[in-house]
Amino acid sequence: MSIPKVQTAAIVPELGGDLTIKTDHPVPTIDSLQPGECLVKISHTGVCHTDLHAKMGDWPVKPMVPLIGGHEGVGEIVGIAPGTANSPVKVGDRVGIKWMADSCLDCEFCRKGLEMTCPKVKYSGYTVDGTFSQYVVSFVHHVTPIPEGIDSAEAASLLCAGVTVYKALKQSNTIVGNYVAIPGAGGGLGHLAVQYAVAMGLRVIAIDTGKDKKDLSLSLGAETFIDFKEEKDIVGAIKSSSEGLGPHAAIVASASAGAYKQAIDYLRPGGTLVCVGMPDADIGINAFWCVFKAIRVQGSYVGNRQDAVEALEMGAAGKVKVHYQLRELEDLKQTYEDLEAGKIAGRIVLKVS
Amino acid sequence: MSIPKVQTAAIVPELGGDLTIKTDHPVPTIDSLQPGECLVKISHTGVCHTDLHAKMGDWPVKPMVPLIGGHEGVGEIVGIAPGTANSPVKVGDRVGIKWMADSCLDCEFCRKGLEMTCPKVKYSGYTVDGTFSQYVVSFVHHVTPIPEGIDSAEAASLLCAGVTVYKALKQSNTIVGNYVAIPGAGGGLGHLAVQYAVAMGLRVIAIDTGKDKKDLSLSLGAETFIDFKEEKDIVGAIKSSSEGLGPHAAIVASASAGAYKQAIDYLRPGGTLVCVGMPDADIGINAFWCVFKAIRVQGSYVGNRQDAVEALEMGAAGKVKVHYQLRELEDLKQTYEDLEAGKIAGRIVLKVS
Amino acid sequence: MSIPKVQTAAIVPELGGDLTIKTDHPVPTIDSLQPGECLVKISHTGVCHTDLHAKMGDWPVKPMVPLIGGHEGVGEIVGIAPGTANSPVKVGDRVGIKWMADSCLDCEFCRKGLEMTCPKVKYSGYTVDGTFSQYVVSFVHHVTPIPEGIDSAEAASLLCAGVTVYKALKQSNTIVGNYVAIPGAGGGLGHLAVQYAVAMGLRVIAIDTGKDKKDLSLSLGAETFIDFKEEKDIVGAIKSSSEGLGPHAAIVASASAGAYKQAIDYLRPGGTLVCVGMPDADIGINAFWCVFKAIRVQGSYVGNRQDAVEALEMGAAGKVKVHYQLRELEDLKQTYEDLEAGKIAGRIVLKVS
Amino acid sequence: MSIPKVQTAAIVPELGGDLTIKTDHPVPTIDSLQPGECLVKISHTGVCHTDLHAKMGDWPVKPMVPLIGGHEGVGEIVGIAPGTANSPVKVGDRVGIKWMADSCLDCEFCRKGLEMTCPKVKYSGYTVDGTFSQYVVSFVHHVTPIPEGIDSAEAASLLCAGVTVYKALKQSNTIVGNYVAIPGAGGGLGHLAVQYAVAMGLRVIAIDTGKDKKDLSLSLGAETFIDFKEEKDIVGAIKSSSEGLGPHAAIVASASAGAYKQAIDYLRPGGTLVCVGMPDADIGINAFWCVFKAIRVQGSYVGNRQDAVEALEMGAAGKVKVHYQLRELEDLKQTYEDLEAGKIAGRIVLKVS
Repeated sequence: MSIPKVQTAAIVPELGGDLTIKTDHPVPTIDSLQPGECLVKISHTGVCHTDLHAKMGDWPVKPMVPLIGGHEGVGEIVGIAPGTANSPVKVGDRVGIKWMADSCLDCEFCRKGLEMTCPKVKYSGYTVDGTFSQYVVSFVHHVTPIPEGIDSAEAASLLCAGVTVYKALKQSNTIVGNYVAIPGAGGGLGHLAVQYAVAMGLRVIAIDTGKDKKDLSLSLGAETFIDFKEEKDIVGAIKSSSEGLGPHAAIVASASAGAYKQAIDYLRPGGTLVCVGMPDADIGINAFWCVFKAIRVQGSYVGNRQDAVEALEMGAAGKVKVHYQLRELEDLKQTYEDLEAGKIAGRIVLKVS
Repeated sequence: MSIPKVQTAAIVPELGGDLTIKTDHPVPTIDSLQPGECLVKISHTGVCHTDLHAKMGDWPVKPMVPLIGGHEGVGEIVGIAPGTANSPVKVGDRVGIKWMADSCLDCEFCRKGLEMTCPKVKYSGYTVDGTFSQYVVSFVHHVTPIPEGIDSAEAASLLCAGVTVYKALKQSNTIVGNYVAIPGAGGGLGHLAVQYAVAMGLRVIAIDTGKDKKDLSLSLGAETFIDFKEEKDIVGAIKSSSEGLGPHAAIVASASAGAYKQAIDYLRPGGTLVCVGMPDADIGINAFWCVFKAIRVQGSYVGNRQDAVEALEMGAAGKVKVHYQLRELEDLKQTYEDLEAGKIAGRIVLKVS
Repeated sequence: MSIPKVQTAAIVPELGGDLTIKTDHPVPTIDSLQPGECLVKISHTGVCHTDLHAKMGDWPVKPMVPLIGGHEGVGEIVGIAPGTANSPVKVGDRVGIKWMADSCLDCEFCRKGLEMTCPKVKYSGYTVDGTFSQYVVSFVHHVTPIPEGIDSAEAASLLCAGVTVYKALKQSNTIVGNYVAIPGAGGGLGHLAVQYAVAMGLRVIAIDTGKDKKDLSLSLGAETFIDFKEEKDIVGAIKSSSEGLGPHAAIVASASAGAYKQAIDYLRPGGTLVCVGMPDADIGINAFWCVFKAIRVQGSYVGNRQDAVEALEMGAAGKVKVHYQLRELEDLKQTYEDLEAGKIAGRIVLKVS
Repeated sequence: MSIPKVQTAAIVPELGGDLTIKTDHPVPTIDSLQPGECLVKISHTGVCHTDLHAKMGDWPVKPMVPLIGGHEGVGEIVGIAPGTANSPVKVGDRVGIKWMADSCLDCEFCRKGLEMTCPKVKYSGYTVDGTFSQYVVSFVHHVTPIPEGIDSAEAASLLCAGVTVYKALKQSNTIVGNYVAIPGAGGGLGHLAVQYAVAMGLRVIAIDTGKDKKDLSLSLGAETFIDFKEEKDIVGAIKSSSEGLGPHAAIVASASAGAYKQAIDYLRPGGTLVCVGMPDADIGINAFWCVFKAIRVQGSYVGNRQDAVEALEMGAAGKVKVHYQLRELEDLKQTYEDLEAGKIAGRIVLKVS
């Protein structure tokens, strides 16, 4: 496979700056790679709200600029750096690139499977260039092999949105038959959370608004749908759909604080609020109720290499289907605008090569 | 043993009302008890901040009035209700009365060992009369047998303060050799937390102020003492005493929100903030950092029957010593004033009979 | 409801003795009951291999004689002992009677939810009379409320076979997407284990023999069926249906040692062998392989009150269906003979009243 | 530091063959190493029973021959292979070499921290040359950094015996205040297990024979010592030193089956038998009692990289002291003979360079 010298890439020139689609961005040569790196030819990439944060630079941890964003990519390895020892992947493999691009694998956090908090962690599309380009440099020990039986477009969204909600559910301290509340159930993360939860044998209380999201949630296996615009007493409605006691867990990906605060109210005593949303804001946890109800609030941050493999296996086994709209890399700017305007249903996947 | 008709008791006549010490308060007769109840002659009782909340009625869940407060009592069973089946205790047994006076033992929460969230739970000195009297009605399935090898005065404080911090440590997701931060280490709960933590093999970072509390903390086995009034960079100091990474857990019993918020800053990624303080206030959990550092915030609410047995066994084994000041029941009013003024070091135990 | 003076009951007169069906066995009067006891009018009862052990007295722990066996009964409460305090059930309630008839709820084991090892535990149809009679004395704190949405005949088998395999799966240290091997998948316990496992999102490798059991196993959701009579290399076949690495867990209910030994061979490193069969025999665990493969062997003994509630809820939710054959109480003798001859497919349920 | 061309090494020429001490064994050159490898100059090495198995080749998994044994070594890195990327260690670092010399860090087992069952795992002194030589090739991602505050001789024994019993205790499902039985408490593994257990707050029942081992066990913090030669009713004695109920766990490193079988008898219901001994023999687990007592049998196989770090930290913190006898590398043959004759008390450490 011949590798071109230049490529199309979507570049954030400076924090908050206008996205630029360049068609003559240089492709790194294999010889210029460091041991452990590989070059991946991207076929599809998802677009995530985090990419907006990367563009705006409004998180406490800052991205590099200029930056190529994107961290839900699937493609083919077209080269591996000279001097790379013991690579678990080879040229020609179909692999995924997730938010956690690389970590040292040697520190305390990596040794414990908490690789995302490794001091040397690299984030795709944030501290290293990401998947909004035709060719991207990634890392042989961290790319995720894509199993057979799943399309690349489908796999893309599982690499961040899928892994994130799957890991959140793993940390929800629930067992089969328990109730889980999923605010935003019809959204990009939510509709995947519903499916992973159903696959685990959980009983899903979907919370969202509108007939489309209701139909989607119920068709994916949610047991109850609560329309937060129509329901006057949301906490009461959630409790009454879970034996009057409330759900055992809630998976909250919201950017607004209210959804977290509300979860403390409706959760069953002993229940778990898993936070996956990352607003740089106080989410209103009240000590009295947190203690009195013996509530756990668990911050869940994407997933590690093993979580990614597991989340994809469930996709390949047909347990989880991504609802996505396919666009072109060139549509990224418009996609950002649509995301900001809250116009996107499901996930967006861009065709790249 | 003859049971008198009247007794001395400290009574809260109305929410926020002035405490009244009555010497002619009626003693319930054994025949008037309901099956499952027992009459306990109190020899010692601890005094806890919660008793102030009971008196003031400033928690979202309200106490009954008039009320006899107190929920850290030790005494002897002097009678068991007629018709009580299968009592695990008998007349003459030395037992403890803890915050959770009774629960149904049949509901989902009781079946799971989360008895403190039983819908039928009764709280000593809050929703039923407590231990600030010479005789109190308690419940045979919930009183805690006091093991040999521990004084009643000593045991009293373990029944609430001890159980609470012991359970908090059990839920701290730590293993031997891990670091734990204990703000308020020289206080009533804190000095017990230091000892339970040391007994578990944890490395304690004690945070408090003043030479007395420093000396106490270090003598109890804390590895590091940080004076929050003298140390300019508390977060930095805590981190640098724990390999630069921060402690694996923090046990926070504070009534002020700042101590919780600060813990999110200094905790090691993947760490656990155990909340035991119960201010009816927002404690400032920030979603970005909670997720980004994969932090768990665990509300820990006293302990169940098994936790109480375990906490007392450690006292009886000499692993934990209560630092307390012995007063008389008649001193309760003054004690409340001292508590409100923050004048109390360690715990207060009242001699009752 | 009028309670007759005599009833039909199946009695084991002595260890190993011939079963006698008596039609004039006395029915205990409500007044003769001890506080905490209740009288249940049995409508249906399952028959379990354990009942054969009770009849033969061939276990190291001996049953009482004369004995009325049976520990999978469903019926209606027709009376509660005078002086019973705080009963969670009332006359008219439909309840189940399981192997663990009663325990003290106060000892260390009960406090920890390990009620089946309570020193005061009573076993239905073993150390107290069981469900092979029209009326049986049981215990208000231990009978299992039967949820709506499930037939009594169906519920009966879930109370022992169902709870047992459900609890075994809970202790199998597996997560969604993991593989579990179920030898005897088409049998009484096995076909329930397949369904509970599928409901938990596990991938089931069913092991049994014959077209009927194959069809049953696959129709219940097993991913693979291995016929142990036709397959020459069972260990190899199990491994190759689980990525070459072997399943993460095996649930073994066999009465023969070979099935346990074989599981050590085929389990994935780090895997768990859950033992539910109770032959009084050495099952051939080899230290070298147990250590070298880091295998866990977990003895799983029926389930506690909470497990029973959960197992039945899954039946009521339609996740688990019992394949059973309905007979009359009078057929019990024949049923024992059929059980001994290995002629029974699925479970046997007897219609009693 | 100049690296000599030849060195002293103890070589097993063939399975079961006579050990040969060669003084002219070639030292690998740094240039001949593969990326990821390093050369370690050994200062001290422990001797383990496993080394005898390596020599005899009597385990089901065979060692390579000719072989340099040894897997408890401490030394200094004197060179790192050219082309090694991202090494967490550097020339001059003091490091330990443990049984698990290397693993891929990429497979399912490595991703889960179960590195010892990696299909590509290499064993020091078994499938690759070990520490019975002055210079050994090891692997940068798997050598264990030795913390300050611990001698190299002391650290050596912690790298296998220490890690093994520490990991076993981590998997013993115990909490502070629980009882643990340690057969062979005065031996090489046992005396370390006693200390790690005490550091975790466990109450140790030491089982061994003779005054020396009694004195040692008690001085290390064991609560009870039972002499298995003098005590007629060992099971009874163990139970009566643990509230009549038996210990919550047993750590069994024995080469004979009896110690495992006996543990099933004395363990508390719900207890855990951790196997660390590796006789290629059936250890007599009885299904009835394993299930009836709800016992867990956990195979525990050395420890992973994180376990090794933790075990050493506890040594450096002074919680664990190795009782060892210092010999010379040239004494290895005699040491093997002494080991086979059961003449060794504590551990043997050889001075190498």
